Amino acid sequence: MKKQNVSDAVIRRLPRYYRYLQDLHLKGTVRISSSILGEKMGITASQIRQDLSCFGEFGQQGYGYNVEELRAEIGHILGVDESHRVIVVGAGNLGRALIHNFRFPDAGFLLEAAFDVSPDLVGRELAGVPVLDMSELERFVAAHRPDVAVLTVPQAVAQRTADRLIDLGIRGFWNFTNVELTSSVPNVRFEDVHFADSLLTLSYRITER
Amino acid sequence: MKKQNVSDAVIRRLPRYYRYLQDLHLKGTVRISSSILGEKMGITASQIRQDLSCFGEFGQQGYGYNVEELRAEIGHILGVDESHRVIVVGAGNLGRALIHNFRFPDAGFLLEAAFDVSPDLVGRELAGVPVLDMSELERFVAAHRPDVAVLTVPQAVAQRTADRLIDLGIRGFWNFTNVELTSSVPNVRFEDVHFADSLLTLSYRITER
Repeated sequence: MKKQNVSDAVIRRLPRYYRYLQDLHLKGTVRISSSILGEKMGITASQIRQDLSCFGEFGQQGYGYNVEELRAEIGHILGVDESHRVIVVGAGNLGRALIHNFRFPDAGFLLEAAFDVSPDLVGRELAGVPVLDMSELERFVAAHRPDVAVLTVPQAVAQRTADRLIDLGIRGFWNFTNVELTSSVPNVRFEDVHFADSLLTLSYRITER
Repeated sequence: MKKQNVSDAVIRRLPRYYRYLQDLHLKGTVRISSSILGEKMGITASQIRQDLSCFGEFGQQGYGYNVEELRAEIGHILGVDESHRVIVVGAGNLGRALIHNFRFPDAGFLLEAAFDVSPDLVGRELAGVPVLDMSELERFVAAHRPDVAVLTVPQAVAQRTADRLIDLGIRGFWNFTNVELTSSVPNVRFEDVHFADSLLTLSYRITER
């Protein structure tokens, strides 16, 4: 499993491969050719072969891919078997929606706690996840060393909250704030969720021309 | 503004161009070269020129792009000046998070109403948006002809709710249910938001190899 200079576009396609293969696996499909997988995903067979060649040798001429093997291998490349620990920072509507509905374990993440400033929320449990006061962040992070913070705080405090978490050693941010966060600390990763990009794609598709 | 056979990858980059140009415009940048824009976005200058050539002639040799002109033009291509009408179907945590925090007008969408089955919500207003009972869907859609439904209902009723909305004439779906929706009706567009794809990309980046 080599991975030198894998392009951003390839990295962004990996979760989609994983999702389609997961789906095929659940439907009982044992093997699939790159052309049929490509047809399902709306990309070319040669693109698939090229993408996967970044990570090793997969599939066999004339046979295609073993669905379960490729799924497991891509899952491994993505780190779903790493059991990353995650906290949700900001338990407003969006934070609560993620806590209640997003399947963190399916992506290999253990959701350990949520943090908020609201006295209405602090001390409660949401879907089994304790909501702690923001003042407990330092103590909790020192003790539990989460890998990732889901950032669902208001925009006005987004950068400040990220800085505080980076100071505590957190390097991965799943950023829902729509603020472009920055940090000079090495190895900090911001993964921004831009809802508008998705809605604008839909807008393009339904716009008559 | 031609647009024949524009690839999915190009369409998906358009909102990102729009976002970056919006940002540059707000910062007062008047013009930008394809190489500097590419550097900011993490793609090559030639990719940008190739993408934009699908839609016409933009920029000038030796000058680059006029930020505001290109922003407005891409906005137009995306349909942000079309004033699409949208309803939110399912006012649970995620629906409420979108109603309260997502800037629909910035994407050219007018949010007209939300629908839910919960007696606690029906009859209320959320951020000025009325929450109506699901039983009013037929009457409302007939009268207001929304273009897009944001689907934030539970998985178990996702396909059924989509079918009901398609029967009423809605063709655009912003789908947050994580269910792969299908329809045999022509011109129905499902834009799926897959949170897990984004988290798995982050997982890849923080996983030590």
